[in-house]
Amino acid sequence: MDRKRLTAFSSGRIKRRDDLLAVEEPLEIRVGGRSLTVLMRTPGDDIDLAKGLLFTEGIVRRASDIGVIVHCDDPRETDLGNIVTVRLVPGVTVDWKRLKRSFFATASCGLCGKTTIAAVRNAAPPLRKTRFTVRPNILLGLPDRLHEAQAGFRTTGGLHAAGLFDAAGRLLIHREDVGRHNAVDKVIGAALDEGLLPLSRHILLVSGRASFEIIQKALMARVSVVAAVSAPSTLAVELAREARMTLVGFLRRKKFNIYAGEARIARAATGGRACPL
Amino acid sequence: MDRKRLTAFSSGRIKRRDDLLAVEEPLEIRVGGRSLTVLMRTPGDDIDLAKGLLFTEGIVRRASDIGVIVHCDDPRETDLGNIVTVRLVPGVTVDWKRLKRSFFATASCGLCGKTTIAAVRNAAPPLRKTRFTVRPNILLGLPDRLHEAQAGFRTTGGLHAAGLFDAAGRLLIHREDVGRHNAVDKVIGAALDEGLLPLSRHILLVSGRASFEIIQKALMARVSVVAAVSAPSTLAVELAREARMTLVGFLRRKKFNIYAGEARIARAATGGRACPL
Repeated sequence: MDRKRLTAFSSGRIKRRDDLLAVEEPLEIRVGGRSLTVLMRTPGDDIDLAKGLLFTEGIVRRASDIGVIVHCDDPRETDLGNIVTVRLVPGVTVDWKRLKRSFFATASCGLCGKTTIAAVRNAAPPLRKTRFTVRPNILLGLPDRLHEAQAGFRTTGGLHAAGLFDAAGRLLIHREDVGRHNAVDKVIGAALDEGLLPLSRHILLVSGRASFEIIQKALMARVSVVAAVSAPSTLAVELAREARMTLVGFLRRKKFNIYAGEARIARAATGGRACPL
Repeated sequence: MDRKRLTAFSSGRIKRRDDLLAVEEPLEIRVGGRSLTVLMRTPGDDIDLAKGLLFTEGIVRRASDIGVIVHCDDPRETDLGNIVTVRLVPGVTVDWKRLKRSFFATASCGLCGKTTIAAVRNAAPPLRKTRFTVRPNILLGLPDRLHEAQAGFRTTGGLHAAGLFDAAGRLLIHREDVGRHNAVDKVIGAALDEGLLPLSRHILLVSGRASFEIIQKALMARVSVVAAVSAPSTLAVELAREARMTLVGFLRRKKFNIYAGEARIARAATGGRACPL
């Protein structure tokens, strides 16, 4: 876990405090010097994770198939804690052909947090400073609106939703999926179709948590304000801050936390004056 | 959503009923005849999803970059509803080199539900019929035990957990991660290390939902009983049934639903007699 500064809004009052967030960072697994996969994970038990993945993907069949499994110690690498290198014992080989597919990474993203964020920033520059603001009361009303529209969630409890709202809190588009990132892609695809992009005067609400991937997708569509019903990850907060995006988390029960881009909400709350919320 | 038969256990009483579950199926996206990615999604709004993905991955920059985008209509394909084919307009090209990576699919899995399940079954045959059973009261106690062990979740609200229990409900291993599938891989990796595999006399509990991927990983480790605090997906239920695995969902507040492999719990409840729960 990692500590992040936030502005908590509750019953019309605000408070600045720190909060612990789940750490999300990429891990690269290399086998025989070759990159097998990059995945987003919470650091800790990396060797267990790599072993488990090698096993559940059918690459090793027993613990003794693995000769060496350690964090990378190549001094030329800049982010040794996020690379695990594996050497299999002689006779155990990787069927790279089976594993390789034409592929692009929706979940994986690069070698380490900073490299990744830099890479994303290159693809999508930070948002421009705009006068776009959102009033706290508008934000507070969004989850109910999405929930009403989201017939699926109430019957199955198994679907994530994403909703696109305008500054007045009107729900323009909503989509559902077993995958939160898919629900976001569906919303952005529909918005693209309707000629709404860039979404610089819109709010994107996601049920559940806000991961790095969600912020990355929202940034591509130039969304100014992303709100999540549950917690953001550390990397989501870092990317949102670098991108000048407003990131709201734990938006529920008439409360929310602002993790990045507070000004868009503060200015609205004070009628445009520069003072804090 | 899709209807699945289940056995609901509540306050010592059981009831058979149907329930609506979120549908999870793979979608393949092809660009210019070439497979770009396979992802697990809830069918519906597939064209929005494909458009959004093409946009958020930086492959197209505007709606007009896409010439044609339709569900596949090649009569040689067997699962047309799960393939979207895209033709970009002349001048817009895919940078396959940038997109391609050495990769193996943790989330993607094949072309269509049935192909996928068949492929997994080949890699991991169904579980053997065993005498291993779990008493309902043991199951009911597991979430609290995982929760107590899971210090992270209570402070951040952003971490998933997976726990491995024995038949008496003792927590042997637990791991956490921002990704539920990573938490499962960490548990299986640790179990591999401790020489516990195959896990045919163990229970795997996951916080949150049970997706196809979780069942697939559990099956590789020969886990007999998988329990989830929230809903399973349709494909998770189908794979569990084919694999002769017991799948329990909505295990919380002294209730649970059995979606597959009911006998392992029923036999325990009746002291080994063949009659139902």
